[in-house]
Amino acid sequence: MKEKIKIAIFGGSGYGGSELLRILLFHPNVEIALVTANEHVGKAVGEVHKNLYGLTDLKFEKSPEDLFALDADAAFFALPHGQALNLIPQLPEKVKVIDLSGDFRIDDKDVFQKFYKFEHTADELQKKFVYGLTETNREAIKTANYVANPGCFATATLLALAPLVKSGLLTGKVIVDAKTGSSGSGAKAAANTHHPQRMNSFYAYKPFTHQHVPEISQHLKRIGSFENDFVFMTHSLPVSRGIFASCYLETTNILTNEDVKNLYELFYKGSFFVRIVENSPDINWVKATNFCDIAAHSNGKQIAVFSAIDNLVKGAAGQAVQNLNLMFGLDETTGLKLVGTNP
Amino acid sequence: MKEKIKIAIFGGSGYGGSELLRILLFHPNVEIALVTANEHVGKAVGEVHKNLYGLTDLKFEKSPEDLFALDADAAFFALPHGQALNLIPQLPEKVKVIDLSGDFRIDDKDVFQKFYKFEHTADELQKKFVYGLTETNREAIKTANYVANPGCFATATLLALAPLVKSGLLTGKVIVDAKTGSSGSGAKAAANTHHPQRMNSFYAYKPFTHQHVPEISQHLKRIGSFENDFVFMTHSLPVSRGIFASCYLETTNILTNEDVKNLYELFYKGSFFVRIVENSPDINWVKATNFCDIAAHSNGKQIAVFSAIDNLVKGAAGQAVQNLNLMFGLDETTGLKLVGTNP
Amino acid sequence: MKEKIKIAIFGGSGYGGSELLRILLFHPNVEIALVTANEHVGKAVGEVHKNLYGLTDLKFEKSPEDLFALDADAAFFALPHGQALNLIPQLPEKVKVIDLSGDFRIDDKDVFQKFYKFEHTADELQKKFVYGLTETNREAIKTANYVANPGCFATATLLALAPLVKSGLLTGKVIVDAKTGSSGSGAKAAANTHHPQRMNSFYAYKPFTHQHVPEISQHLKRIGSFENDFVFMTHSLPVSRGIFASCYLETTNILTNEDVKNLYELFYKGSFFVRIVENSPDINWVKATNFCDIAAHSNGKQIAVFSAIDNLVKGAAGQAVQNLNLMFGLDETTGLKLVGTNP
Amino acid sequence: MKEKIKIAIFGGSGYGGSELLRILLFHPNVEIALVTANEHVGKAVGEVHKNLYGLTDLKFEKSPEDLFALDADAAFFALPHGQALNLIPQLPEKVKVIDLSGDFRIDDKDVFQKFYKFEHTADELQKKFVYGLTETNREAIKTANYVANPGCFATATLLALAPLVKSGLLTGKVIVDAKTGSSGSGAKAAANTHHPQRMNSFYAYKPFTHQHVPEISQHLKRIGSFENDFVFMTHSLPVSRGIFASCYLETTNILTNEDVKNLYELFYKGSFFVRIVENSPDINWVKATNFCDIAAHSNGKQIAVFSAIDNLVKGAAGQAVQNLNLMFGLDETTGLKLVGTNP
Repeated sequence: MKEKIKIAIFGGSGYGGSELLRILLFHPNVEIALVTANEHVGKAVGEVHKNLYGLTDLKFEKSPEDLFALDADAAFFALPHGQALNLIPQLPEKVKVIDLSGDFRIDDKDVFQKFYKFEHTADELQKKFVYGLTETNREAIKTANYVANPGCFATATLLALAPLVKSGLLTGKVIVDAKTGSSGSGAKAAANTHHPQRMNSFYAYKPFTHQHVPEISQHLKRIGSFENDFVFMTHSLPVSRGIFASCYLETTNILTNEDVKNLYELFYKGSFFVRIVENSPDINWVKATNFCDIAAHSNGKQIAVFSAIDNLVKGAAGQAVQNLNLMFGLDETTGLKLVGTNP
Repeated sequence: MKEKIKIAIFGGSGYGGSELLRILLFHPNVEIALVTANEHVGKAVGEVHKNLYGLTDLKFEKSPEDLFALDADAAFFALPHGQALNLIPQLPEKVKVIDLSGDFRIDDKDVFQKFYKFEHTADELQKKFVYGLTETNREAIKTANYVANPGCFATATLLALAPLVKSGLLTGKVIVDAKTGSSGSGAKAAANTHHPQRMNSFYAYKPFTHQHVPEISQHLKRIGSFENDFVFMTHSLPVSRGIFASCYLETTNILTNEDVKNLYELFYKGSFFVRIVENSPDINWVKATNFCDIAAHSNGKQIAVFSAIDNLVKGAAGQAVQNLNLMFGLDETTGLKLVGTNP
Repeated sequence: MKEKIKIAIFGGSGYGGSELLRILLFHPNVEIALVTANEHVGKAVGEVHKNLYGLTDLKFEKSPEDLFALDADAAFFALPHGQALNLIPQLPEKVKVIDLSGDFRIDDKDVFQKFYKFEHTADELQKKFVYGLTETNREAIKTANYVANPGCFATATLLALAPLVKSGLLTGKVIVDAKTGSSGSGAKAAANTHHPQRMNSFYAYKPFTHQHVPEISQHLKRIGSFENDFVFMTHSLPVSRGIFASCYLETTNILTNEDVKNLYELFYKGSFFVRIVENSPDINWVKATNFCDIAAHSNGKQIAVFSAIDNLVKGAAGQAVQNLNLMFGLDETTGLKLVGTNP
Repeated sequence: MKEKIKIAIFGGSGYGGSELLRILLFHPNVEIALVTANEHVGKAVGEVHKNLYGLTDLKFEKSPEDLFALDADAAFFALPHGQALNLIPQLPEKVKVIDLSGDFRIDDKDVFQKFYKFEHTADELQKKFVYGLTETNREAIKTANYVANPGCFATATLLALAPLVKSGLLTGKVIVDAKTGSSGSGAKAAANTHHPQRMNSFYAYKPFTHQHVPEISQHLKRIGSFENDFVFMTHSLPVSRGIFASCYLETTNILTNEDVKNLYELFYKGSFFVRIVENSPDINWVKATNFCDIAAHSNGKQIAVFSAIDNLVKGAAGQAVQNLNLMFGLDETTGLKLVGTNP
């Protein structure tokens, strides 16, 4: 048996870190060498993430001062935006990096600053980063040393749009109406995730200004020709986990439902984690899993594509591990066949 | 003080009937003469709708065999689609009618049959029906004897679109992504409202084929010129009450956020039940009330309009009573200033 | 018509204040002269409590520095524990006071300090306070100038236990297993009300140490002889509103179900807001209302009594207004026939 | 490697069957030879339980007419009460049986009939059944050919009570206040699981008459001396999964919190699936797992024990597989280290 991949996780107390731990602790080819959480130094992982109580003896550590001495084969960064930007340049080159934050997703420094509200200070490093939307970027990821793991909304949207963008049949405006569960706001309590109100709420937020807009556009342009008007809108759902993206598109030719379905099935042939489904995906069927379920419908030239993911898995930690697998020559499903529940 | 309006409610056991009772029992100008529920004949209303226990002695009755002898000033029909169609022609002419079903919302007999899957057998009566979207049709409703109360999705969508359609500034495709709570499926238990699954679900349904599509188009054409491509999509939300419509439009000219907001405020000036809000409406703020909250945003020529209603109130029983008020010369808010709760 | 009662509300931004506003703004005999919220000074009430947007022009004010000059007939205090204690002594005597906090519910200074963790500094004033559990203390409340409004758990528990304590039939240990919705934790976001976790949670808290224990015992001793062992346990429910108390008791004699039901119906005869129901109450049927629903069952000498209230209404603001009504000679239901919804 | 255990599942379409499939499809020592679902014959398992779509090619089959010819090492019965009773006697003796229904949990025929409302017709077979509460009955299960898998409420309650019953320290009345999520009512839509109402509901049901009462008593008498008065009450929670039992007991001696905790830790030493936790368990931390979390507190001689399980896992399918493991000489955790999620 091959030696295990030694992993460091920076930022283990948030939901991204929590999910990385849930997956990596049981990954057959991985050994967790370090997990940091500055506010929980010394505490058992199972004390903070009580779902893991009894399943691991791992403890949270302080982030090492000398990152260059880090003894790991790979490092995941699950920190708030703006922190990985400063830490990753301090790592030795032999450590492969997967960043779950938005720090390295945008190529254009100015666009980055406009949407993230702070300056991107690692231009050279940015060029080394590969965008980690696995299903559309597998070959690049396999040889990458630095992967920018996609945003949760971006993942659901890009997987829904990629086949049609690639097909060259797209014309006119593209509208994406996306909805996320409350875990998308992170593990810290805040007004917008206050249970007494959130449980009966549905609302839109950040109209026309969400930071995933440039991330999505940039990557679509690499998949195919994409100069279309693009409207992307985010909403809050009163569930814990799940993103649902409803995408409205137009094609140059009339397509039947069968045509569209075929196009999607062909595109995702060989992609274990994308399931093309009838009628509509449902966030219930992907919760806690790395699946992205997609259904596509046509009405003449009007197309509707629906996609559903678990924002913390395929939209974050799961896809990150999928990328790790590829970067280390493993089957991309290794340790990732997480089985969801029915009710 | 004027004599009270004598009311008959046909179909008092469903959620529409339940909400009519919640409102009309406390309406200062109304007296309920009859409420039918064939499966609950003889039972106290407060036994079936336990929220009303202790607040009324009213009992459910059988639907009278001789409708022509009905002693009432007005009759509400809150029956499944297809029943009012047969009953209303049997009423004496002096009884003003408000139908909450879809039976009289579509003028074109063929379109009706296509979407409702049965033949419309009351052509002549159809011509007497006025569409009851109060804010856009007040004058016609005031003198109407027959009102077709709008569908819940249609109400949320039409109130969001009306000002821009009226303005003449609309161009291009119109996309409406609408979401409803589970009470929209009615009071009878069914697979799609089974709690263990619904509580974690979000999915789309009836893509491109929802019966509110022709209802919306037909009424938009009366509000202004509306020949635009129109895509309307319905989704299921894991809340009990509420509809949220996200509408994506395009204008011929560039509008600022301020322009759009002014346009909406002007259009709804004098409409107590439409509140123009900042950022986004939230179904939490309209639950159990007759309000429709709307926010509109522009990004150049791209416009997003969000509307939120309670599907059972402004989307059904509340608007029905609003119409009753107008038909009997009362202020449209009479008995309808239902106050929602914060959490 | 009588002149309106001039009301001051201290603490209008929390959930207690929010509910006081929801009720008092539409109370026929009341006029709100002042509502304070130090962090929202100058803001419209409808901007903070968006359920009230469009229904009032009232604005939040700073708490007056000179309380002695307050021009009001009555003042409600809906502040965090420990604040009313300092403010109420500064009011002129003519202002009748209803305190929704725990500051004046416990007669014994030492017991107070043990459970509230700070010293009670207003001994003399304490003696003037009447405990505001309306159904058991009506006559005293009618002539009171100072009312300590009961805690939410205490209300649900006391109303469930009072008839049996009064009957003299009680023997043995009394166990109360109580559960509350998340709004009981207040309007401020906190870890225990973080939606992603709370929505799937149920847990116990403060075992054997909840501050409502002495409040309940103290009042039971006034209702009848109560020297029984008493275990009171609080749990968190994943709903927004509602308290459900399951009470397990034992009687000296064997009682039939009918006996117990009669005992409860007799005790609450004339109490509009207590409804004796079959089988079990359900928090769904009391939400947003001032009702307390109670069901009682026997199994030989073992008795189970279930009660359900809305923690923010009968458990706080609603009962406070019920007490106000009595203090000013009004029917206790005035302005309080809040109608709940079915789904 | 040993040959795999050939499994038949009778009743694969309900939630019990769904969970058996979720676990057994990925169990390293198991092969599913047959899964029946009479209303889905020929359909893919992943079409009915969409969480399993893409993870198995298994199809539902008709229940074989000749059960005696069944080629399987073990059979799970996840059928409605009353069906296994007739089917199990038809199996060949070599097939080991685990029944998830209530059919073989009660030894006394008359008690069975009183609570299940039909006659028990398999007296002789009943004697061969071993009660499958793994942690308290391991040795018997290891050699059993017939296991009656415990009810969900019974599991949560018995695991909470067993250590104190065994200790001989128990005295006085035992009260258990138990709460279950909606999946406990099964996969078929019904009035009590209708989402619009259930999501805001909490209520008690079957007071003093739940069929798990004799199941619990019978097994407690085997664990230790148990002649105490026993009150068991069931309630409905607005979550999908989870049972929480609050148990109120009394001891002959004063115990400290530490004493009680030690007693529980000792009793469950070596039981991987029981975790003794601080403060309180939370159904959130056991969802989708086979864990039972327990916390115990004392207040003099008054003891409160809280337990939480996933009703479909430790309360049904998970414990069934735990028993299978023992019956076939495997480690009881094989295939059962299901990892729950944090939010």
